[in-house]
Amino acid sequence: MVIYDNKEWIETIVNFYRSYIIRQIFRSTLLVGLITAVLSFIVMEVLQLQIKFHSNVFSLLGIVLSILLVFRTNTAYDRWWEGRKLWGGLVNNSRNMALMVHSLLEGQATEDRNFYAKHIANFAIAMKEHLRKGVKLEELHHLDPVEQKIYQSRQHIPNHIISQLYERTQQLQKNGTISGYDAIPLKTHLQAFTDILGACERIKKTPIPFSYSIYIKTFIMLYTVILPFGLLEEFGYYTILLVMFIFYAFIGVELMAEEIEDPFGLDCNDLPTGNIATTIKNNTYEILCLYAEVEKEDEKELYEKVF
Amino acid sequence: MVIYDNKEWIETIVNFYRSYIIRQIFRSTLLVGLITAVLSFIVMEVLQLQIKFHSNVFSLLGIVLSILLVFRTNTAYDRWWEGRKLWGGLVNNSRNMALMVHSLLEGQATEDRNFYAKHIANFAIAMKEHLRKGVKLEELHHLDPVEQKIYQSRQHIPNHIISQLYERTQQLQKNGTISGYDAIPLKTHLQAFTDILGACERIKKTPIPFSYSIYIKTFIMLYTVILPFGLLEEFGYYTILLVMFIFYAFIGVELMAEEIEDPFGLDCNDLPTGNIATTIKNNTYEILCLYAEVEKEDEKELYEKVF
Amino acid sequence: MVIYDNKEWIETIVNFYRSYIIRQIFRSTLLVGLITAVLSFIVMEVLQLQIKFHSNVFSLLGIVLSILLVFRTNTAYDRWWEGRKLWGGLVNNSRNMALMVHSLLEGQATEDRNFYAKHIANFAIAMKEHLRKGVKLEELHHLDPVEQKIYQSRQHIPNHIISQLYERTQQLQKNGTISGYDAIPLKTHLQAFTDILGACERIKKTPIPFSYSIYIKTFIMLYTVILPFGLLEEFGYYTILLVMFIFYAFIGVELMAEEIEDPFGLDCNDLPTGNIATTIKNNTYEILCLYAEVEKEDEKELYEKVF
Amino acid sequence: MVIYDNKEWIETIVNFYRSYIIRQIFRSTLLVGLITAVLSFIVMEVLQLQIKFHSNVFSLLGIVLSILLVFRTNTAYDRWWEGRKLWGGLVNNSRNMALMVHSLLEGQATEDRNFYAKHIANFAIAMKEHLRKGVKLEELHHLDPVEQKIYQSRQHIPNHIISQLYERTQQLQKNGTISGYDAIPLKTHLQAFTDILGACERIKKTPIPFSYSIYIKTFIMLYTVILPFGLLEEFGYYTILLVMFIFYAFIGVELMAEEIEDPFGLDCNDLPTGNIATTIKNNTYEILCLYAEVEKEDEKELYEKVF
Amino acid sequence: MVIYDNKEWIETIVNFYRSYIIRQIFRSTLLVGLITAVLSFIVMEVLQLQIKFHSNVFSLLGIVLSILLVFRTNTAYDRWWEGRKLWGGLVNNSRNMALMVHSLLEGQATEDRNFYAKHIANFAIAMKEHLRKGVKLEELHHLDPVEQKIYQSRQHIPNHIISQLYERTQQLQKNGTISGYDAIPLKTHLQAFTDILGACERIKKTPIPFSYSIYIKTFIMLYTVILPFGLLEEFGYYTILLVMFIFYAFIGVELMAEEIEDPFGLDCNDLPTGNIATTIKNNTYEILCLYAEVEKEDEKELYEKVF
Repeated sequence: MVIYDNKEWIETIVNFYRSYIIRQIFRSTLLVGLITAVLSFIVMEVLQLQIKFHSNVFSLLGIVLSILLVFRTNTAYDRWWEGRKLWGGLVNNSRNMALMVHSLLEGQATEDRNFYAKHIANFAIAMKEHLRKGVKLEELHHLDPVEQKIYQSRQHIPNHIISQLYERTQQLQKNGTISGYDAIPLKTHLQAFTDILGACERIKKTPIPFSYSIYIKTFIMLYTVILPFGLLEEFGYYTILLVMFIFYAFIGVELMAEEIEDPFGLDCNDLPTGNIATTIKNNTYEILCLYAEVEKEDEKELYEKVF
Repeated sequence: MVIYDNKEWIETIVNFYRSYIIRQIFRSTLLVGLITAVLSFIVMEVLQLQIKFHSNVFSLLGIVLSILLVFRTNTAYDRWWEGRKLWGGLVNNSRNMALMVHSLLEGQATEDRNFYAKHIANFAIAMKEHLRKGVKLEELHHLDPVEQKIYQSRQHIPNHIISQLYERTQQLQKNGTISGYDAIPLKTHLQAFTDILGACERIKKTPIPFSYSIYIKTFIMLYTVILPFGLLEEFGYYTILLVMFIFYAFIGVELMAEEIEDPFGLDCNDLPTGNIATTIKNNTYEILCLYAEVEKEDEKELYEKVF
Repeated sequence: MVIYDNKEWIETIVNFYRSYIIRQIFRSTLLVGLITAVLSFIVMEVLQLQIKFHSNVFSLLGIVLSILLVFRTNTAYDRWWEGRKLWGGLVNNSRNMALMVHSLLEGQATEDRNFYAKHIANFAIAMKEHLRKGVKLEELHHLDPVEQKIYQSRQHIPNHIISQLYERTQQLQKNGTISGYDAIPLKTHLQAFTDILGACERIKKTPIPFSYSIYIKTFIMLYTVILPFGLLEEFGYYTILLVMFIFYAFIGVELMAEEIEDPFGLDCNDLPTGNIATTIKNNTYEILCLYAEVEKEDEKELYEKVF
Repeated sequence: MVIYDNKEWIETIVNFYRSYIIRQIFRSTLLVGLITAVLSFIVMEVLQLQIKFHSNVFSLLGIVLSILLVFRTNTAYDRWWEGRKLWGGLVNNSRNMALMVHSLLEGQATEDRNFYAKHIANFAIAMKEHLRKGVKLEELHHLDPVEQKIYQSRQHIPNHIISQLYERTQQLQKNGTISGYDAIPLKTHLQAFTDILGACERIKKTPIPFSYSIYIKTFIMLYTVILPFGLLEEFGYYTILLVMFIFYAFIGVELMAEEIEDPFGLDCNDLPTGNIATTIKNNTYEILCLYAEVEKEDEKELYEKVF
Repeated sequence: MVIYDNKEWIETIVNFYRSYIIRQIFRSTLLVGLITAVLSFIVMEVLQLQIKFHSNVFSLLGIVLSILLVFRTNTAYDRWWEGRKLWGGLVNNSRNMALMVHSLLEGQATEDRNFYAKHIANFAIAMKEHLRKGVKLEELHHLDPVEQKIYQSRQHIPNHIISQLYERTQQLQKNGTISGYDAIPLKTHLQAFTDILGACERIKKTPIPFSYSIYIKTFIMLYTVILPFGLLEEFGYYTILLVMFIFYAFIGVELMAEEIEDPFGLDCNDLPTGNIATTIKNNTYEILCLYAEVEKEDEKELYEKVF
């Protein structure tokens, strides 16, 4: 995720090349400009056609299209923002769980503290990769060889980690370390972990329905193909400029919506799930007073520092 | 549900025939084109009428219509997305319930584990069919002849399955296997099952109010009939093309909204409830360490793999 | 509530007369057409005025109006859908409560089972009527003469029924039939009953603010009166047709919004609260194994069967 | 709050004078009409200017403005509706709390019953005034001189009332009248009281950001000043009519949004918080069987009766 | 946050200079006016070009842009309003926590009361600064030298404060001052603190995706550059006025959205988090009967007094 100062217009615009999508928009706009130029030349100089399309109809279609694109943008943005909320919820739940465990366990129960810290941190890390291309076991912390083996045999690593946490909590409840009253909120947090995981999977795996995707793409393509005929007679070679601008307006909204629709990847607008996972790890170890494990966050230039 | 890579425009558009609705849109657009062609021929060649409709009025009506269609799309999409959330919630609840039961029951309590795994899985399968055309008992797993008989006598199978789960939980609480503290969240999950079921029934059984449905259909039809008269004089035979494009714009939004409004069927944009139910079954058995029952998911090409 | 197959356009449109509101829309549109015809005749033939209103201004006003009407529609639809959700929630809560009571009470506790079944069912029936014109005691089931008398003395019957359920639950908790753990979720359901009731009352009693109602009505009327002057010169007698179409577009949205704004009545788009109440009754008795009381639902043609 | 039958158009429109805001809209529209008339006279007769403003630009600006005004309306209406929901929640919570107390306390515990009834009712009354201009102690019921004195010394009366309820509940829990299980939901209701109070304070104290308020006001004023120049040449003295209509369209939306933004006052569209508070009082006393205190609600003509 | 009376138009508009953003809008609008004036002079007097751009295309682009800007405004406003809700929730939670502690602890437990009051108040103060530029320890109340040292060693002060509250609550539960029943809601409030904190951090750290920010800025700039060419021929030097007005319309929406997007700073439209924190402190001390600590709120002119 690119960080930027929203109020610095000039700087923001100059840095536009940092956004992959913006570059793509510019490239496809240039392509459309080129095609329109060739077309205009053929129609006006070679064929010398006299086409008279009233541009009112193009206005109507353009407005219809833009209303649809706002629908598209809203739904895509809602996913992105819901994804952000879910990861924010993961931070909150991890912190809360750590705070609770810290207040419930005596200071010397280092083994239990370590267990919770490690598994809470590993859950965030595993979930991050699970939502990309599958969990890489080498990214998880402190897996001993036995665990490594068990983890390898499981398909759904995040589920397995939650299961470990459930079992340990149940065990502590049974041996009386944690009372029944205190086990309830702990389990509520574990449940929240599952819920967040499931909701992220839902966002990742359910893009906008296929028909809408085709429909909008076809609409934009048709519109761009027909548009020059509606402008040529009146604007001559200025048509190229206008078509490019109008195409830029529509393609931009569609492409940006496509990018943020699946917010867990590594695109420049995607959520900084990697950083958030690191933060969760640090917070958890710090709260549980296991300071040795708190890593220095490496500030990456232009990338957001998450709490 | 068709899966696709949102960023591959060419491939997506070439595959358009996979979407039943898109094909329907193209077909009806062609039909409208044909009718307009005949009409244009009659008006211009046979009758040689001189109709002069200012197209501003058509712009106004078109914008009004498209604003309405976005309202239509929003409400339809909200149902679809709510349906997806509910099934996502079902996945979460099933997993959580399995995780809880797993941590509460000793490893040797195979009978109880089997009971929960079977009923949780069967609930998802029964619900899937219940939301289509009624539950087929042969799809449910491990029903012994006695159960088969009882199930046949019940009208509302999903309700009956939840009732079984309630009774077993209550029984385990009574004989002390599960403490009072632990029974509360278990029952909360059962309650969530009922809530999800009820909400899906609500979505299925309550389409957009009848009046809106007629109103929009009448509006589109009237508009398409009158539109050629507004364009003929100015555009001549190009009118056919323009009418087809405008009709495509409006009918597309309406038809797609109709398709996703009831998201539990087998249309190409409907939710993959079958796959989700299989996933729930696999997850549940895996979490409860009943690996023998975990089926290999058969990857269907172009159909989404759900977690 | 009219049921219909959303995908059968022809059939739907042919059945339009079933919707009271659609008929009303057609009627008022015809009236406006008539008035416009007379007006056009007078202006063009009798007075032979030359009015030249640029229709751009009418487009602007029309778009402003339609944006407002979408706001109107959204808020009205939100009420309707919230009402549907609330009644769906009532179904869920009733089922859940019945399932819980069923698992908590021994099979032979017929008196208690009957008590809960009767009061849960009666609550739904009383609420349905309470949201129309007041509860008719003869619709409630199994009221003995003593109860009849008490009920008659109460103003707010649904409240009284919940109060009965609270008292019985408290009593069962006191005599040990239900443990403290189990009483909590039961009471949560009773609380949900009150919340649903209160929310329905809120929807019924709070229409859109008075000013908005007047404002929109005045706007439509003024617009329709002035519109012909903007079209007459250009379109001649076609003006009648266009005015009717535009009027149809605006009045339709407003009238439909008015109809669904209070969704608990007996209009054709209102929610099938009667059917839902019957369903709740049947479900409750079936879950509590009091099969004798389960009535055959009488399928009404063209009316929705609710689960 | 004015009550009205939404389906009686004529009657509603004739009664428009009951809405203060509608009258204000008409008045300012007349004023604008007058100014435009003078302006038109000067430009056309005195200066005989020939201004040729293409009205397309005004359409664009008008549409931009109306889209913004819908944003304005949506946010204002959301506050109004959230306020209504909060007061509806207050009704539900009060009823539920009374129902619970009724089922928990023996019939003879008149002192405790009276305490709860009095404080629940007083909370609603105090909150109503707190959201207007501060609590008037004489409106609260049954304050004895000692209480009167304590109340006078407190800044935040509603907080103090909740505090009383907390203390009494804690006391009853300590002396065993109420079990630990039963105290939890009671305290949850008290917490809901605080939450509702805080949310109402938030709505009251946070209007739309200052910049938006200025921005929209300036936009409307500028637009109205420039508009006549765009219409004069084409429409002559009809300009006055058109400017008035367009101004009416914009100013109406803005003024109505301003009115409903703070919904707890005494404007004609504000929420009937006074009536709701009385209803809460009556309901609470009725549920707790303290019939002597149930007042006859005095029906105010044209004002909504709340449940 | 500037307070103002929404119904005083004249006064509001005259006070516009109080809004930094509005001033910025006016300044940039003037700049654009100047540039357009120079451009117009060059085109018309020096080059004497005859450019004929149909302004329909500009209308289309303008409408597309304004629809996008409403999307922009909606998302920015949602953040602002969510931020307000979160701080409102902080007020509610603090009050509730104080009310609970007050009812749970005996009057003489001054040390514990002081502990809760101090930490609840300090949490709000620390959070306010944490969302700006980091916590200033000197703003926190009653830190003794030992605490000061510990606080200095922590990175995340608000987390540390919650941790203190958790530990103390756990300790009181262990020594029997607070029962298990009563500890649950107390811990729920602590959890709510973490959740509110995390949600505010999310809002602060996740602006609208970078691509959208660039896209909109580029769109507005391109539009403003091309616009004069579309108007010059028709409007001559009036073009300057029109370009300024249209630019004002678009830039205003964008700049205001940028301002309220991060609502925790010190801009004139930002939330009055400082005042809210003071209020929380006063309320908490008052509820816990530690009147000596209740400070007189210093009314700042034109700044909102929060409850």
